[in-house]
Amino acid sequence: MSAIHKDRIEKLRAAMKEKGIDAYMIPTADYHNSEYAADYFHAREYFSGFTGSAGTLLVRQEEACLWTDGRYFIQAAGELEGSGITLMKSGEAGVPTLEEYLDQKMEEGSVLGFDGRCVPCREGKALEKMMRRRKGSLNTAFDLADGIWTDRPALPCHTVMILEDDYSGEDIESKLTRLREVLREEGAQTYIDSKLDNIMWLLNIRGEDVTCNPVALTHVLVDHRNVYLFIQDGEVTGELRSYAALHRISILPYEDFEDFLAIYDHRGDMLCDQSCVSYSVFLAAAGGLDKKSMGFEMITKKSPVGQFKCVKNKVEIANIRGCYKRDSAVMCRFIKWLTERVADKEKEPLRESEAAARLNHMRSELSDFMDLSFSTISAYGPNAAMMHYEAVPEVSDAELRPEGMYLVDSGGQYLTGTTDVTRTIALGPVTAEMKKHYTLTAVSNLQLMGAVFMDGCTGANLDILAREPMWREGLDYKCGTGHGIGYYLGVHESPPSIRWKVFPGRADEPFEPGMIVSDEPGVYLEGKYGIRIETILEVVDHEENESGRFLSFEPLTLVPFDKKLIDPDYLTPFTRKLLNDYHERVCNEIMPLLGPAEQEWLISQTEPI
Amino acid sequence: MSAIHKDRIEKLRAAMKEKGIDAYMIPTADYHNSEYAADYFHAREYFSGFTGSAGTLLVRQEEACLWTDGRYFIQAAGELEGSGITLMKSGEAGVPTLEEYLDQKMEEGSVLGFDGRCVPCREGKALEKMMRRRKGSLNTAFDLADGIWTDRPALPCHTVMILEDDYSGEDIESKLTRLREVLREEGAQTYIDSKLDNIMWLLNIRGEDVTCNPVALTHVLVDHRNVYLFIQDGEVTGELRSYAALHRISILPYEDFEDFLAIYDHRGDMLCDQSCVSYSVFLAAAGGLDKKSMGFEMITKKSPVGQFKCVKNKVEIANIRGCYKRDSAVMCRFIKWLTERVADKEKEPLRESEAAARLNHMRSELSDFMDLSFSTISAYGPNAAMMHYEAVPEVSDAELRPEGMYLVDSGGQYLTGTTDVTRTIALGPVTAEMKKHYTLTAVSNLQLMGAVFMDGCTGANLDILAREPMWREGLDYKCGTGHGIGYYLGVHESPPSIRWKVFPGRADEPFEPGMIVSDEPGVYLEGKYGIRIETILEVVDHEENESGRFLSFEPLTLVPFDKKLIDPDYLTPFTRKLLNDYHERVCNEIMPLLGPAEQEWLISQTEPI
Repeated sequence: MSAIHKDRIEKLRAAMKEKGIDAYMIPTADYHNSEYAADYFHAREYFSGFTGSAGTLLVRQEEACLWTDGRYFIQAAGELEGSGITLMKSGEAGVPTLEEYLDQKMEEGSVLGFDGRCVPCREGKALEKMMRRRKGSLNTAFDLADGIWTDRPALPCHTVMILEDDYSGEDIESKLTRLREVLREEGAQTYIDSKLDNIMWLLNIRGEDVTCNPVALTHVLVDHRNVYLFIQDGEVTGELRSYAALHRISILPYEDFEDFLAIYDHRGDMLCDQSCVSYSVFLAAAGGLDKKSMGFEMITKKSPVGQFKCVKNKVEIANIRGCYKRDSAVMCRFIKWLTERVADKEKEPLRESEAAARLNHMRSELSDFMDLSFSTISAYGPNAAMMHYEAVPEVSDAELRPEGMYLVDSGGQYLTGTTDVTRTIALGPVTAEMKKHYTLTAVSNLQLMGAVFMDGCTGANLDILAREPMWREGLDYKCGTGHGIGYYLGVHESPPSIRWKVFPGRADEPFEPGMIVSDEPGVYLEGKYGIRIETILEVVDHEENESGRFLSFEPLTLVPFDKKLIDPDYLTPFTRKLLNDYHERVCNEIMPLLGPAEQEWLISQTEPI
Repeated sequence: MSAIHKDRIEKLRAAMKEKGIDAYMIPTADYHNSEYAADYFHAREYFSGFTGSAGTLLVRQEEACLWTDGRYFIQAAGELEGSGITLMKSGEAGVPTLEEYLDQKMEEGSVLGFDGRCVPCREGKALEKMMRRRKGSLNTAFDLADGIWTDRPALPCHTVMILEDDYSGEDIESKLTRLREVLREEGAQTYIDSKLDNIMWLLNIRGEDVTCNPVALTHVLVDHRNVYLFIQDGEVTGELRSYAALHRISILPYEDFEDFLAIYDHRGDMLCDQSCVSYSVFLAAAGGLDKKSMGFEMITKKSPVGQFKCVKNKVEIANIRGCYKRDSAVMCRFIKWLTERVADKEKEPLRESEAAARLNHMRSELSDFMDLSFSTISAYGPNAAMMHYEAVPEVSDAELRPEGMYLVDSGGQYLTGTTDVTRTIALGPVTAEMKKHYTLTAVSNLQLMGAVFMDGCTGANLDILAREPMWREGLDYKCGTGHGIGYYLGVHESPPSIRWKVFPGRADEPFEPGMIVSDEPGVYLEGKYGIRIETILEVVDHEENESGRFLSFEPLTLVPFDKKLIDPDYLTPFTRKLLNDYHERVCNEIMPLLGPAEQEWLISQTEPI
């Protein structure tokens, strides 16, 4: 593989020379700062060979480097071997960030290139500033993969569906009214957004342009009178045309957004969230405002749509609760099947990919099922130490043997919600160390799940409830504890997040009832094993009294922990009670969804310890 | 009392009219943003009658309002009664901040007045901006108390002492070198600072211009060649003159600082921390820079001196540890004496102020004792619900009866450190509710004390370890959990702090070994009782392994909790162990400092439960 990538990088270097670009950056991004980009946007993978979902390639004539985060250190080291590309482990001591690296390496007057449509506005501005310090410049007009990547897949183009009010819980008129109220409060006339899940939520539509993400490639501009939706013609159905006509939505060609921004008749300030538009879109919008010479300004603030979207309404919550129960019942049936299948010595050994396929199939039979919410992580033994492992037959696809631990992280996209759940299970004998680490992870998960906290708290306040049992033992997982989750949208949805590190300029949002967050501590020992327990939580009102308003969590995920992996020495009466209470709830809620043999299994799994 | 204050406010209103000022603000502040201001600066108290240590008076012709925080709601309500001044409870729902209030009330073109020397730079700038929005203006040139407060105390003026290296642990040359290195890194030529404890620390001097605060009224300007110290002539001793000559410190008149800034020969950028200079000083400094017309800029960032100061060096740490042991031994002797004295029915009842006097006297007999670090809070029963209560004979001075609880919060200024400790003790029979609340407070205190956390954590990450037991019971204390503490300096020293609310623009600093913080959760029930347990903690290295660097706390305060107030139903095996371990440490460390009868008492107090 590495020879191919070496060759591709040499071609890229030749194209860079031709355009006078000294360093060319290829992020992992589409034009919408989406977490998962369609195949068309996999240029970083095309040039580097690294297949992980996050990473940035930077190519200079002298050196090529790839930055990725802790989830992918092990995988990236393997995939980059022999490619000549240096792996930069983001966040590790002594490893410069991409910006620091550029600051060190870019000479005065040099040119940094990237496709401005693939870089979020804020990052583009930071790079612009950095290059200005270097007395250099940016060239953001070219996608250099264009001339080199000859068999590049087409831009995805699938028809769009309308999400009925029974699923969305709020019609488009109400959502537009709320957005326009914020515009009025901010004294703005216009709102632009390129973030796909924001646009889907706002217009109550869904697409299928990105695997596992029910989104359509779109941009939107909303002002006090009109809505302009930029979308590929092939995505527009007759139904969408009628719906658009009914709600005064003008449908315009997807590729015309930047041009439209340049000629749009500005009559006031424009509001945008810098994380929801690309650097190119921002430049076009700012240029359009300037051209008008009326002193109208760009107001940059957190997207009100993102804020609305993350607080689920009553219909969404009711749907989600039902959806998680059905999804949890599938998980129960899968775990029962898997442990029995692996223990069955009569049968051929099961492989990771086969287990994943079985689970995916089981999910697909549920009502309202639309898609998976991400590629199922089905990881046995040391493979589970890679946070985002994917079993691929004939590449990496371990046999599940009746010993040690198996980790499965999976989820579905349903009309009634988006699910995400991880359980780690014993397939046979396990070591005392495994039990200790599993129990610590369970305690971490339960302590956060059982939190009671004041209104106003953020994830940075709560994170230590999950980490404290780990830290006390000298362990730490190198990722956040939790992320927000969409409603039949992104499985990772900001703003909610639970992490202790606060990044400048990325202020944590306080929790609100109706928010949905994951709770997924873990222990990852490279080359040995990985443990993760992920339970999805709903933020609920807990109590209001003279001390103020208290919030707490209710678990949406209802799948037993593996008692065979619990070492009671690491439980306190309090955490033991949390575990037994959770299991009692799992049993009560999931029993009606199971058949007799599965019910018996669930009862045994959830008996108090 | 209230008639006097009404009259004074009327005089102030007349003076305002004369100067064309529509609203006049009197904060609780000296020219140095000190926490405690000398009597000269007590204009807010003079006009309002409110004696608390924090609060801002705002007088308009139509209305006068006083803002103060949760520590003082009860006290302020009493002291303001009948004065006609509206109490504004800061932080309570529906109560506007002072700025919001002004934003509502100030008409277009109106004038807000205050003494610009008494307002920190950032606040002054925010008010300036707010008034500009209102098309109004500021008048910051007058201290309107001047013509009205005829018997105003003089500006304090006491001689300054040099702190020997055996106490400071780092000589002035080393400190100046470190500061100048930061200036070089920032590309700055000059550093200005008006924060008194910063200046004392930097120059290794101490003063006595503020009660309980060993500081001298000073300003300082440091550049790469010189140090300019602005100080009243009466404070300068022959020793200080020699010391200044030795270290190339120019001594200039205190009142000349702003004029000096206007004429100073700028040869580069100036660095200052906006929280360490007044609005007047900032204007003078910025004006001086502008006048030079060389394009030199003001670089505003956190004071490097403040950052240096809060991480105690080895000598300071060794001194502090010894100091806290001796101070803790005094507390043990005091608690033993007090409980026996109150139980002694032969004797006259003891009053709060007498208990405080006894404790103050006991502390004053210690070696290195210089002063108290704040007025001792000696509070019985409901008085303890006021966080900053002070017993005053014939005003409020309760008898200590052999029942219920007594709270004592006190500390000393020693050459070897600054102490601060709170213990709440049973004087006789107590209710089950008291025991529950005391035990929750003890658990809060111990859980934070026992934290293990990653390098990089801030107080906002850790605060919930203390609050979690409270929140679970629907309780909350309306203040931070902890503050930094100086070395023979301020008993409240920023930047360290432990609080869950993060204020915009006030980024939390990560903990570092050598920092000293308080751990002081509490339960406060207005009209019933107050409980606080305050233990001072030193941040120490805990472990470094493949997961990273872990920190933890060591308690400096070694005074037993009151086991009579512990309800074991609210202990877990883990928190019980934390309590017993702490008591074992207290016993081992404090025994050698006590006499035989006290030793026996300590053994009984610290026996495991």
